[in-house]
Amino acid sequence: AIWQAIRAFGDSGPLAGPVADPLADPLAGQPDFASENHRPLHGRHVLVTAGPTHEPIDPVRYIANRSSGKQGFAIAAAAAAAGAQVTLISGPVHLDTPPGVERYDVESAAEMLDAVESALPADVAIMVAAVADWRAADRADSKIKKDGSGQVAPLPLAVNPDILSSVAASPARPRLLIGFAAETEHVVSHAQAKRLRKGADWIVANDVSGDVMGGDSNTVHLVTAEGVEDWPAMPKDKVAAALVERIAAHCMKDDA
Amino acid sequence: AIWQAIRAFGDSGPLAGPVADPLADPLAGQPDFASENHRPLHGRHVLVTAGPTHEPIDPVRYIANRSSGKQGFAIAAAAAAAGAQVTLISGPVHLDTPPGVERYDVESAAEMLDAVESALPADVAIMVAAVADWRAADRADSKIKKDGSGQVAPLPLAVNPDILSSVAASPARPRLLIGFAAETEHVVSHAQAKRLRKGADWIVANDVSGDVMGGDSNTVHLVTAEGVEDWPAMPKDKVAAALVERIAAHCMKDDA
Repeated sequence: AIWQAIRAFGDSGPLAGPVADPLADPLAGQPDFASENHRPLHGRHVLVTAGPTHEPIDPVRYIANRSSGKQGFAIAAAAAAAGAQVTLISGPVHLDTPPGVERYDVESAAEMLDAVESALPADVAIMVAAVADWRAADRADSKIKKDGSGQVAPLPLAVNPDILSSVAASPARPRLLIGFAAETEHVVSHAQAKRLRKGADWIVANDVSGDVMGGDSNTVHLVTAEGVEDWPAMPKDKVAAALVERIAAHCMKDDA
Repeated sequence: AIWQAIRAFGDSGPLAGPVADPLADPLAGQPDFASENHRPLHGRHVLVTAGPTHEPIDPVRYIANRSSGKQGFAIAAAAAAAGAQVTLISGPVHLDTPPGVERYDVESAAEMLDAVESALPADVAIMVAAVADWRAADRADSKIKKDGSGQVAPLPLAVNPDILSSVAASPARPRLLIGFAAETEHVVSHAQAKRLRKGADWIVANDVSGDVMGGDSNTVHLVTAEGVEDWPAMPKDKVAAALVERIAAHCMKDDA
């Protein structure tokens, strides 16, 4: 698969270095904790997607979603800090790989789906990436030229694969499948509908009606079968820590 | 104008700090040179555009051109090192502002045109930005939703303003106007046609048939009224230094 050729494992970041084995201790190089209780996700495989996708129109143009990748990277970092084995599949971003996280870089939605399928099975999947809903129906092999008329034909689009639905329908579906929804209006009702339509367990509904893309905080609502929790605006790493805490509690209840 | 609100002057980079006056010595903080001959562009105002533009489709989606901005930033840095007063108008990139360069950040082609017109007059303009030829004809104020049909309508496009042609036709046209052309095929003939069509003096034709976007070297051809020079593949900072040397020689000849 393409992602194997472009895997980037622990290749940047302050604690980068030879982290040879993705099954080895993901907290290598991190502060020691006194108790196993501080690593509630130890032994779990957590899959995280992050960032945008870029959908090529021709060799120089593409359609993109706004996403800095910060929220997904923060969640991957928090899951690793909680002791999980973390696979992070990232679209094009400018972020360092968190310590103890195994990262694969992809560009398009099709590549991301391929990488996600290859990364399964996982105990928990958190699909944070802002995957483009459409791609150019035909990718031109050479740069599309202007014809000088001052007019331009509409761009034919095709619908991209739905990664969250695909994972929900997979025989390797994670026990806990979490989607993200960036919404500008009707944030909670859209997220509730998305949870049912996609077959996800939880939806983290992200209110992007302000200009939060690329910023460092988020206002989210956690939508589950039990109801809706409205979380206050928090820095992205606090959202990540709170979500990972909820995930760990859920996993422990699931085991019991 | 919008760019005044979002000006970013010397706000990053190793030599960042209070650089109060764009007319002050652009080499402040740089190594001293023994002779004025090392600052052949002293007293000239050089305008550089760099990076891609992002054309919004709705609050979360946009059309973009591939461009890291590295070549334009390298040219701005080389011009400042040659003593010029440099105005750099940049699309969305992840690069530090070179020392001694006054930088304005923009997002779309329309914003870039506005910023360029506000920055004139200039002695030399080097239009390196990969400006998107089209934008979405209608920008949606809220996120466009999938309708669940698995189908999607073609995206209506509109032709963007042509910044190079606009500058060429401006009463404030710089004495030396240089355009860039990223081409995947017929590199030189496309560039020759572009030079005449746009009213530029020189075109730097950049062969992007390999995967050079975001890389650190370029293979360019300098297309002028006198003919075509084929330059060998060089790091982007060497291309910048060679181009600035040619510009300085041209300006000196022009004065004579």
